[in-house]
Amino acid sequence: MKKIAIIGGGVAGLSAAIYALRSGAEVVLFEQFGLGGLVATIDKIENFPSYSSVEGWKLASDMSAQAKALGLKTLRQRVLSLKKDGSHFTVITDKDAYSFPAVVVATGTSHNKLGIEGDFVGHGVSYCATCDGAFFRGKSVAVAGGGRAAVSEATYLADVCGTVYVVTTQSEFDAEEAALNGLLSRTNVVPVYNADISQIIGNDGDVAGINIYQDGKTRTLDVSALFVATGARPVTDFVNVDGVETARGYLVVDGRGETAVKGLFAAGDVTNGSLKQIVTACSDGAKAGSFAAAYSATVKED
Amino acid sequence: MKKIAIIGGGVAGLSAAIYALRSGAEVVLFEQFGLGGLVATIDKIENFPSYSSVEGWKLASDMSAQAKALGLKTLRQRVLSLKKDGSHFTVITDKDAYSFPAVVVATGTSHNKLGIEGDFVGHGVSYCATCDGAFFRGKSVAVAGGGRAAVSEATYLADVCGTVYVVTTQSEFDAEEAALNGLLSRTNVVPVYNADISQIIGNDGDVAGINIYQDGKTRTLDVSALFVATGARPVTDFVNVDGVETARGYLVVDGRGETAVKGLFAAGDVTNGSLKQIVTACSDGAKAGSFAAAYSATVKED
Repeated sequence: MKKIAIIGGGVAGLSAAIYALRSGAEVVLFEQFGLGGLVATIDKIENFPSYSSVEGWKLASDMSAQAKALGLKTLRQRVLSLKKDGSHFTVITDKDAYSFPAVVVATGTSHNKLGIEGDFVGHGVSYCATCDGAFFRGKSVAVAGGGRAAVSEATYLADVCGTVYVVTTQSEFDAEEAALNGLLSRTNVVPVYNADISQIIGNDGDVAGINIYQDGKTRTLDVSALFVATGARPVTDFVNVDGVETARGYLVVDGRGETAVKGLFAAGDVTNGSLKQIVTACSDGAKAGSFAAAYSATVKED
Repeated sequence: MKKIAIIGGGVAGLSAAIYALRSGAEVVLFEQFGLGGLVATIDKIENFPSYSSVEGWKLASDMSAQAKALGLKTLRQRVLSLKKDGSHFTVITDKDAYSFPAVVVATGTSHNKLGIEGDFVGHGVSYCATCDGAFFRGKSVAVAGGGRAAVSEATYLADVCGTVYVVTTQSEFDAEEAALNGLLSRTNVVPVYNADISQIIGNDGDVAGINIYQDGKTRTLDVSALFVATGARPVTDFVNVDGVETARGYLVVDGRGETAVKGLFAAGDVTNGSLKQIVTACSDGAKAGSFAAAYSATVKED
């Protein structure tokens, strides 16, 4: 019998549900909050192929409706632990325990925050250059962070925006030399070392600048956006399955979305995928949902 | 300078264009026919996440419009050859030759046809069970083919449809044992060996049955759909670049969409991806377009 659990109701999980349900599987999706995940909170999306511009809540609610019409069953429970017992996986929640022959983990990431973002998220504060860079074409922007992610985000922005300030609390960037050279060779990049971002300055609710504290003084950078690239943490603490491989905390999956453990699949931001976008999460979900459903049909009852 | 060529204007190519353009690259897309590729010819799509149901031409034209609004330049030329000359790639068309630091190949596949499909394609004749199986939930269907693809398609359909006839001209199926056992263990699967499909019977323009010729006699199978799974051929004959790896003819790419040759990327059905769907092609395109654009900025002029 085809039956799978999906943990996480963002777009990766919803896409997995759509594909598994269409293939004739029974699907139980665990999500403690509303469906749609991070996408539901995005103001404006312009890089999901086919939509020149769409609001996040609309995309999320359309996907939810599509999955529900196919028979999706959602349990509003928090998953505390995922274990493997024999040929099956046990999902332990704050309410009960459930057994499934195959599971898709689609719990995404949690961004590290500066703590000063307030209501500016989506109004100039962003956690993703590829997602939001094009909204600030030709304008001055700032990147917060000094690691690999900050260097990568700033390099992307340098080709799209005007002046790009890269503000780090460190005295140098911590990234591969080639990546760092790529960034510093761009003439519109201004590194700002040993500096803290102390405040976001708003104008009518949108970012209009940031205050930075450096060498005992505070000064203002006039920027239209602040890209926070101080790292993200994949949400995997509940995964208690031996043999799962991770890379910098992200679940390592093959081209079918399967982890090193048979029957355990993952999709979206929680995986080690190369690009973290809505459309890549949906694609991951389609694969993981399809192959998890097919695999579940091969598992014998214990 | 960021500049890439994209060969093929289906959804993989268009998605690559959208992502490359948003990252600040100049993009030239080569397509001899209209934009949208195979997707533009599909009647009804119900598995692209967020659209419960959408016509193919609509999805294709929305993606085209999105790419054009970002500045996509399209050349309506047929690509005859793609070569590598020094650090650059040369695209030779029926009109001219062009040089690019990075290229995305998104030329898709060409399905092998039975030759009797006529106007029934999209009206009961399909080349993709994952795409169209759910339209025939509970109904009898037939699969044409005797290889790995036919076995896989028929297995999928067995969990969604009613009786699934699998018609092959051979005396047995040519597929891995586990896959074959999976198919034959389904009680609603009826293998039909040593048989030719001679005719499609229509009713009001939709498939209502097929005639099969077996042991010197013709009989009719009452089916609502015929899934043709006699193989597909990736369109790669123009790729004349040393060092490109292929698997059963498909271009082998890494998780970023890059082939074994630096600067040569591929996306969509032409690659060795595990699932061939519109959303996976779009995701492939997003990755290949992003990373090709980033790579092109690192290439020095010869």
